Amino acid sequence: MTLSLHTLREWDSTDPLASFRDEFDLPDGLIYLNGNSLGALPKAAKQRAQQVIEQEWGQGLIRSWNTADWVNQPRRLGQKITPLIGAKAEEVVVADSTSVNLFKVVAAALALQQKKGRHEIITEPGNFPTDRYILQGLCQSLAGDPVLTTLPATEITDRISEQTAVVVLTHVHYKSGQMHDMKAITRKAHEQGALVVWDLSHSTGAVPVDLNGADADFAVGCGYKYLNGGPGAPAFIYVAERFHGKVEQPLSGWFGHSAPFAMLDDYEAVGDIRQMLTGTPSVVANSLLEVGLDIYGRVDMQQLREKSVRLTDAFIELVEQSCADRGFTLASPKDSKVRGSQVSLTHPQGYAIVQALIDQGVIGDYRAPDILRFGFAPLYVRFEDIWLAVETLKNVMDKELWRDERFQKQQAVT
Amino acid sequence: MTLSLHTLREWDSTDPLASFRDEFDLPDGLIYLNGNSLGALPKAAKQRAQQVIEQEWGQGLIRSWNTADWVNQPRRLGQKITPLIGAKAEEVVVADSTSVNLFKVVAAALALQQKKGRHEIITEPGNFPTDRYILQGLCQSLAGDPVLTTLPATEITDRISEQTAVVVLTHVHYKSGQMHDMKAITRKAHEQGALVVWDLSHSTGAVPVDLNGADADFAVGCGYKYLNGGPGAPAFIYVAERFHGKVEQPLSGWFGHSAPFAMLDDYEAVGDIRQMLTGTPSVVANSLLEVGLDIYGRVDMQQLREKSVRLTDAFIELVEQSCADRGFTLASPKDSKVRGSQVSLTHPQGYAIVQALIDQGVIGDYRAPDILRFGFAPLYVRFEDIWLAVETLKNVMDKELWRDERFQKQQAVT
Repeated sequence: MTLSLHTLREWDSTDPLASFRDEFDLPDGLIYLNGNSLGALPKAAKQRAQQVIEQEWGQGLIRSWNTADWVNQPRRLGQKITPLIGAKAEEVVVADSTSVNLFKVVAAALALQQKKGRHEIITEPGNFPTDRYILQGLCQSLAGDPVLTTLPATEITDRISEQTAVVVLTHVHYKSGQMHDMKAITRKAHEQGALVVWDLSHSTGAVPVDLNGADADFAVGCGYKYLNGGPGAPAFIYVAERFHGKVEQPLSGWFGHSAPFAMLDDYEAVGDIRQMLTGTPSVVANSLLEVGLDIYGRVDMQQLREKSVRLTDAFIELVEQSCADRGFTLASPKDSKVRGSQVSLTHPQGYAIVQALIDQGVIGDYRAPDILRFGFAPLYVRFEDIWLAVETLKNVMDKELWRDERFQKQQAVT
Repeated sequence: MTLSLHTLREWDSTDPLASFRDEFDLPDGLIYLNGNSLGALPKAAKQRAQQVIEQEWGQGLIRSWNTADWVNQPRRLGQKITPLIGAKAEEVVVADSTSVNLFKVVAAALALQQKKGRHEIITEPGNFPTDRYILQGLCQSLAGDPVLTTLPATEITDRISEQTAVVVLTHVHYKSGQMHDMKAITRKAHEQGALVVWDLSHSTGAVPVDLNGADADFAVGCGYKYLNGGPGAPAFIYVAERFHGKVEQPLSGWFGHSAPFAMLDDYEAVGDIRQMLTGTPSVVANSLLEVGLDIYGRVDMQQLREKSVRLTDAFIELVEQSCADRGFTLASPKDSKVRGSQVSLTHPQGYAIVQALIDQGVIGDYRAPDILRFGFAPLYVRFEDIWLAVETLKNVMDKELWRDERFQKQQAVT
């Protein structure tokens, strides 16, 4: 039985999350399948921007650190993230970029483990590039001779030894959408005395995450993908409560001090999650992220996951229906249980096809060397959109629109 | 001869920078002497925020990395800072917070020097606290056993030895407003083989800085003070061209990669100033900062310095005229040649006096243990404001308004 536009429209009409789409500003006629790279604009962000810029900054000026409670933004926003990732209210803080935060938590985990003679950091090949780059920089610069080992994910838990300090993995792979079994990997790592740092950038707000349930140690994640915090939005850090007051992190700035406004000469870390803060937080950026988080405050994550699975299943099925024999290969798991909210295809002409799709009003993205990547943000992607996206893809292939010379030259795409 | 309100109003009427005040939104009736802590809101920031949020993010979505040139923001903004600090167009980039950036440049300088057997970092007591905290965290975490030595500024250049890797100083002191002789200190450090990192947070946009003229090595600075970039605005980094392609910094994220969008497994630093970038930049925050920088593009820095000296001189003179025998001591240099654009006074009741002043509509700030700090942002502070501020201070002291119990309890003030 084939999947019809009629069926997909029926699914939209009974979708319990359908009304969330109205809370986002989306360009007319555009099908946006790139919320895994940059989330859409919540309508409420416009008013919030006006308020924080014109009232809190313009009129309140320096007083707003207290009167508008800017000083507690990092912790308040962190608390709003905790239900999405299965953390306790005081285990998450918002700060800096994912890259900077990864440096902090891996260094913190490493310092704990180096005391036990463990110096090895393990990650997988093809992990999100900036994570790998940060680990490389960290190994070159930090004391104690940390060593970076790269192993296929399937081999990692078997290769953990008494040398292994930390395993660093991205929960949902940025390219394939493959989802690791957080609980099983964490358990096996712990059995061998290793700690695990999870990058939740492609999970948070897309699939339910249960850090506490997995007994997770440390995590970081992104604010501008499914959380819809705006381009380059601040990221977040999770540190399990059992480590609070027991870790050190190298980027020990004044917002992590026990008495930041006493302006003392010597650093003394505050004993809670704020220890992971560094410099003065970006207030306007935080305020925009909070709007995205407040929407999630009303989302049932199980409903979200069900919709996400249905969206991605439907996309895969429709591509098989309409674009068979077009040279596409599914690069994501077919089994939805181990797949995030994205679907990747490979095609030798991947770059040009993605450009032709964008030209036709369907935005996905390309990842070298041959990946077409489509993200399905369940808060604003409709089932009908899936139909239209695949029809457009079929049209691009049938008419060979990708051959247009405008689509041949590779440009920077984030 | 005493300074009269009439004279100050005359100065305002002939001030070549007077019209810049109209470009800022300032609350009616408020005298804002805290632009050294958080700059005022440029009116144009409101439209720019709307544009970047509603058009670039909302409508352009992911495409704006190219179509709105988000990808080049860090370098473009850096270029706009260079005339204010005497740097070449390609020597400055905007990124992260001042604290994070200080970690990067000190680590970069240290790595160069460790190859020569130099491991000591020298700074002064009472340097901006977060700078000291970052240096402490860096010395505890980085390889090569870096050691932090704290010496009174007057002793530093004499104490530089063949062990000394880097001297880290804030150009204009956050508390006293005392300005170091950048050229002389840099020269003496270089003579001994040491490098110097300058924190320009309290200088940039307040006093002309000539990094190239001083043969400066590295610098960082703040975007939210005199540059008026908004609360927690991104900061900047200067690296002298002679070090480009020759340094390493530990926070090696994807925006510092030679081919960020190729998504390669291994880090390879780009050979220019962008190497100091780490994660995805905060686009909205950068866009607001750019508004502040564009105003400076039309400012004559010598005129700005002349006005700044006149404002601070007038303030000191009026305090002497009106508040003699009130227990105040000048905590800033009397000689304007070694003073930034701020004036600090000490008083045993400093905290309560500042609170009473704020209550009366004059915003300065308090720094423990006894400092009343007043910043004079020459773009929007009028000479008349100085008169009104000192009259208000006189009134607070004459009527002992600071004794009000509301002003006794210390709260967080940034």
